[in-house]
Amino acid sequence: MKKLAIGIDIGGINTAFGLVDENGDLYADSVVSTKKFPLFTDYPAYVAELTESLHALADSLSFEYELVGIGIGAPNANYHTGVIEHPANLWKFPVGETNPDESRRMFPLVDDIKKAFPGVECRMTNDANAATIGEMIYGNAKGMKDFIMITLGTGLGSGFVANGEMIYGHDGFAGEFGHVIAVRGGRQCGCGRRGCLETYVSATGIKRTVFELMATMTEPSELRDIPFANFDAAMVSTAASHGDPIALEAFRITGELLGYALADAVTITSPEAIFLFGGLAKSGKYIFEPTQWYMEENMMSVFKNKVKLLPSGIQSQNAAILGASALIWQEVKQLGA
Amino acid sequence: MKKLAIGIDIGGINTAFGLVDENGDLYADSVVSTKKFPLFTDYPAYVAELTESLHALADSLSFEYELVGIGIGAPNANYHTGVIEHPANLWKFPVGETNPDESRRMFPLVDDIKKAFPGVECRMTNDANAATIGEMIYGNAKGMKDFIMITLGTGLGSGFVANGEMIYGHDGFAGEFGHVIAVRGGRQCGCGRRGCLETYVSATGIKRTVFELMATMTEPSELRDIPFANFDAAMVSTAASHGDPIALEAFRITGELLGYALADAVTITSPEAIFLFGGLAKSGKYIFEPTQWYMEENMMSVFKNKVKLLPSGIQSQNAAILGASALIWQEVKQLGA
Repeated sequence: MKKLAIGIDIGGINTAFGLVDENGDLYADSVVSTKKFPLFTDYPAYVAELTESLHALADSLSFEYELVGIGIGAPNANYHTGVIEHPANLWKFPVGETNPDESRRMFPLVDDIKKAFPGVECRMTNDANAATIGEMIYGNAKGMKDFIMITLGTGLGSGFVANGEMIYGHDGFAGEFGHVIAVRGGRQCGCGRRGCLETYVSATGIKRTVFELMATMTEPSELRDIPFANFDAAMVSTAASHGDPIALEAFRITGELLGYALADAVTITSPEAIFLFGGLAKSGKYIFEPTQWYMEENMMSVFKNKVKLLPSGIQSQNAAILGASALIWQEVKQLGA
Repeated sequence: MKKLAIGIDIGGINTAFGLVDENGDLYADSVVSTKKFPLFTDYPAYVAELTESLHALADSLSFEYELVGIGIGAPNANYHTGVIEHPANLWKFPVGETNPDESRRMFPLVDDIKKAFPGVECRMTNDANAATIGEMIYGNAKGMKDFIMITLGTGLGSGFVANGEMIYGHDGFAGEFGHVIAVRGGRQCGCGRRGCLETYVSATGIKRTVFELMATMTEPSELRDIPFANFDAAMVSTAASHGDPIALEAFRITGELLGYALADAVTITSPEAIFLFGGLAKSGKYIFEPTQWYMEENMMSVFKNKVKLLPSGIQSQNAAILGASALIWQEVKQLGA
């Protein structure tokens, strides 16, 4: 009988999910609103709506199949416990609640899904780790035992694989490479500290760099006509393709800081390859070339010219659903091995 | 029948080896000179003397036992291939050889030992990785699946364990944490780059810091009477215990840079504990307190107050032999599991 897994991608606005086979083919998909449930007291209603929609999806296929498991990618997900812990953008305290107790914002989603799907395997990790396993199962990291995944979105996410296994760490939260310090005392980060890599290397980071450069450089630039509030990182790519000096310098700086940080990461895990995924990675040579150059320039000699810097092999718009479902296929593979 | 493993520790001056049981008890040990064989053309003679001495050691016990394997800790050891690649301090080119070809300095020690001990398991890794496995088998990391080992000697070595397994990396050389960049454009490092962590955090590093501070600070210090060439790191400990201001400031700076670097490492692998091993670690509170303080001060909030900073549990003067033998016991354990 055909085997399928459900992949669920939980974002601040929507929760998308789909039925995926072991080759990464999507058989059906759907979506529920996450945003409709803004308060932490809404969480049970969210679970009810999500599980009902998951059952509807599972029943929608016209052929018989075996549901092998449910994989979830979610922010602040603890792989070991299956709990979403204190998410920054999900299920907040009611407006006006004074002195809120953060310990209440713990959401045991894996257990709640298992109640609705008794006997079905369920696994959860953060979205970057899910993308990493997706790359290993469906993408360009097939067969690799040691690699690093860098996801460039609003922030910088990462996943580290060593000895063929995801590094979840003792507490289940490993792989926060966006929060190594790139510039000590540097830009303010949403995490409350300063100079984190993602404040420079991410869609938001390159935008901040462009605005800094508009102050420090005098060259004309098409980017000078766009207000901060309307600015998005894709505009830097477009401007770079026109030869815009500020856009090109912003990419060089972004690649410099990412290259430095990757050269350090290589000394720790010595990967076969590093993958770049997400919006900024689609800027192609503008991001890959300076990153590669600064990485090699700063690499310890034993690792020089050994580590491949590659684009992700998963270009589908359903990458996040695929990544989440890959959590299950990874499990199936390990049991079979 | 009693089972024993041989552990071999290869240093630039001596090669020490011993017979060790699974509890870390040493039954016999011996030593041969490494220094006697300075040229790369001497390597076959070194192997002959070493294997002969190993056989003599193996035959020296008065009871019958099973030799389960031979573990080796050596600089520049490739775990995957069993080859010592381009070691900095072993088997150099003959004096006066012009235009030497580095590719000849590859020493397949595991294969050579296996020829002398047919059918016996043999494994080799670098000394810091061997110490890491020693900690896991005999020391304070027993039962831990995720931890980091920092060895503070002339340089800074490290071993990273995730999911209960040593991270050797794709090329077998992972764990070079002494060569993450602590200060961009900083002190010259033996690796040819600048600002590597070990140029600040190691016996040599703290010595360099003391000499810098003698220039920048005006306070009196007992260390001002010692010439650079006669100076060793233990003197900084002694001076610190007298309240010497330069020694205390040198430890603070060392702990600051190590704490920063460890806070970054935690974001990647999220360990349960970090162990400090070796000469500088014996300075106790002088190194532990500032390291802990700066690590926590710079820790991403999700990891704050979660990671233990601990001394190594292996205090024996035979730590290096024990670590090397642990490579074999680790293997035995995994086969039994």
